[in-house]
Amino acid sequence: MKKTFLFISLLTVGAVATNPLIKQAIDAGLKPIPHSEEEILKLIDNSKNPITKAKVELGKKLYFDPRLSKSGLISCNTCHNLALGGVDGVEAAIGHKWTANPHHLNSPTVYNSVFNKKQFWDGRSPDLENQAQGPIQATPEMASPKELVVGRIDSIPQYVSEFKEAYGKDVKIDFKKIADTIATFERTLVTPSRYDAFLLGDENSLTKDEQEGLKLFIEKGCTACHTGIALGGSMQPFDANKQYKYRDIGDFKGDKNGMVKVPTLRNIEETAPYFHNGKVWSLKEAVQEMGITQLSMKISDSDANKIVTFLKSLTGEKPDIKYPVLAPSTQKTAKPEVK
Amino acid sequence: MKKTFLFISLLTVGAVATNPLIKQAIDAGLKPIPHSEEEILKLIDNSKNPITKAKVELGKKLYFDPRLSKSGLISCNTCHNLALGGVDGVEAAIGHKWTANPHHLNSPTVYNSVFNKKQFWDGRSPDLENQAQGPIQATPEMASPKELVVGRIDSIPQYVSEFKEAYGKDVKIDFKKIADTIATFERTLVTPSRYDAFLLGDENSLTKDEQEGLKLFIEKGCTACHTGIALGGSMQPFDANKQYKYRDIGDFKGDKNGMVKVPTLRNIEETAPYFHNGKVWSLKEAVQEMGITQLSMKISDSDANKIVTFLKSLTGEKPDIKYPVLAPSTQKTAKPEVK
Repeated sequence: MKKTFLFISLLTVGAVATNPLIKQAIDAGLKPIPHSEEEILKLIDNSKNPITKAKVELGKKLYFDPRLSKSGLISCNTCHNLALGGVDGVEAAIGHKWTANPHHLNSPTVYNSVFNKKQFWDGRSPDLENQAQGPIQATPEMASPKELVVGRIDSIPQYVSEFKEAYGKDVKIDFKKIADTIATFERTLVTPSRYDAFLLGDENSLTKDEQEGLKLFIEKGCTACHTGIALGGSMQPFDANKQYKYRDIGDFKGDKNGMVKVPTLRNIEETAPYFHNGKVWSLKEAVQEMGITQLSMKISDSDANKIVTFLKSLTGEKPDIKYPVLAPSTQKTAKPEVK
Repeated sequence: MKKTFLFISLLTVGAVATNPLIKQAIDAGLKPIPHSEEEILKLIDNSKNPITKAKVELGKKLYFDPRLSKSGLISCNTCHNLALGGVDGVEAAIGHKWTANPHHLNSPTVYNSVFNKKQFWDGRSPDLENQAQGPIQATPEMASPKELVVGRIDSIPQYVSEFKEAYGKDVKIDFKKIADTIATFERTLVTPSRYDAFLLGDENSLTKDEQEGLKLFIEKGCTACHTGIALGGSMQPFDANKQYKYRDIGDFKGDKNGMVKVPTLRNIEETAPYFHNGKVWSLKEAVQEMGITQLSMKISDSDANKIVTFLKSLTGEKPDIKYPVLAPSTQKTAKPEVK
């Protein structure tokens, strides 16, 4: 993560915040990604499953390893592709045997997901450790029973020795430990952008047009939901008034109170299509749709364009990821089941 | 590629070849991966589509980009996964809409494929540039018509500017140019191992057991087909006597003369399952099966184990690959078609 944080530090050295928009943004609840790993750790719960280099490296391997899926063909990275803004770019996730998500749900980005207060569209998961257990097992996703996942990992000596390195020689490799390790890697997937430099005091890091878009973004009320570090990530009422244009696509209705997890807007230019059912492909349309659905207002073409200009400044610097070399399966490794 | 070649160079400095097995191996047609990029280029045809840094970097992006497929979900790396020895680890390749290869053909490794004399199991393709055009278009693989691929690339300004950087500002981005660029990246996927250091004169780089296995490998006649740099890669008669245990799985019969491309044995420990139809999962069984099918001999358990020990020394050092960050699609980009 060093490179990334250095980038922000350099930008902020010597900057003095005189632009009133910075104060306006902070007052609206917007928060920059802090400029050191240490400060990020203060903002997230790192106590139960602390980040270490060995765990992150192992978690990265697991994240990219398709052998965690029943078929041996689908990895976490298949639907949360780190080359593509942390998503798959299709409306509804496609999993085992090319099954579309039965609720027509769109894969949310893994980048900056550490800043979400809840995970999944219905917020049913409190953290990434818990979340990671879901898609591995879900039949229309990776479709792997826990025992299959643990058995495959246990059958590959290099994985066993890397778990020992990460957790000590008496480690018990169970399904939870595997998910925890993946989550440790995911918590490093943080992408600071020019917008953070701006909030941290470097007034020139956003153009005049981007600043104008940010101002509109705040003044139209978008920050009511899209706030905090993630510009999203909390549970909010959605479509209570049934205005969402594509409300009939899929059967998703939010949690038991009709609340829906607000997606982060970081890297939003890279994460089309939008909304829980992935029906909107244009960022401008998404902004205008949200105006109608959530703010009961018509956002003009001109204002929507300006907000989009701002939103594109949220595309962040991705951490450098060396593509892993995974240890080979052995005679004890359960074979892929593609049928 | 630098790191890799340095590894070999260091090993060979000052080594003097006195072990008669080295001469025996060279006499049997086995050849090491040379210790410099320059010498490798002498062995392959680099004239028509010369390797440059800009082309390799762009080719890497295209190789990992699932938007080259109709669905937006399958990249070259899906079936030729660089984390898994350059293969997918399933018997028959699974492509668009989870379609298995209709001939039950197994995905060959992309690593060291530059050293193959022909590409595809039936050798119908003379080089990687030509080969790369196949799976992108094939209906049960990436299922993309040429126009779709070119249109998607053309719709992403960063790709257009990277093509200009690689080929000059007047470049015409057509399907052939895209495939050529992917092939340029693939030609860098070379994996020298301790075996190469041995052939280059460092007698201690293979253990006594591995040397014993190599000697058996030569003396049993395996080098009749598994020779050259790739330990394979040429067209040879296969199963003329119909001995192959799984001959009835799939309808593949080789080229019009019944010739089949001999797979490389480099990284063979990582590329199970084996043979054109991927029916054999054990390397020992594969060795014994080849004894019966190709050499009309029973290879004892003990000898097969020794040969396997040698074969595992062919697992090579993989090039460092930074996972790419791909530019986002635009409103002009043709949407993924998952159905």
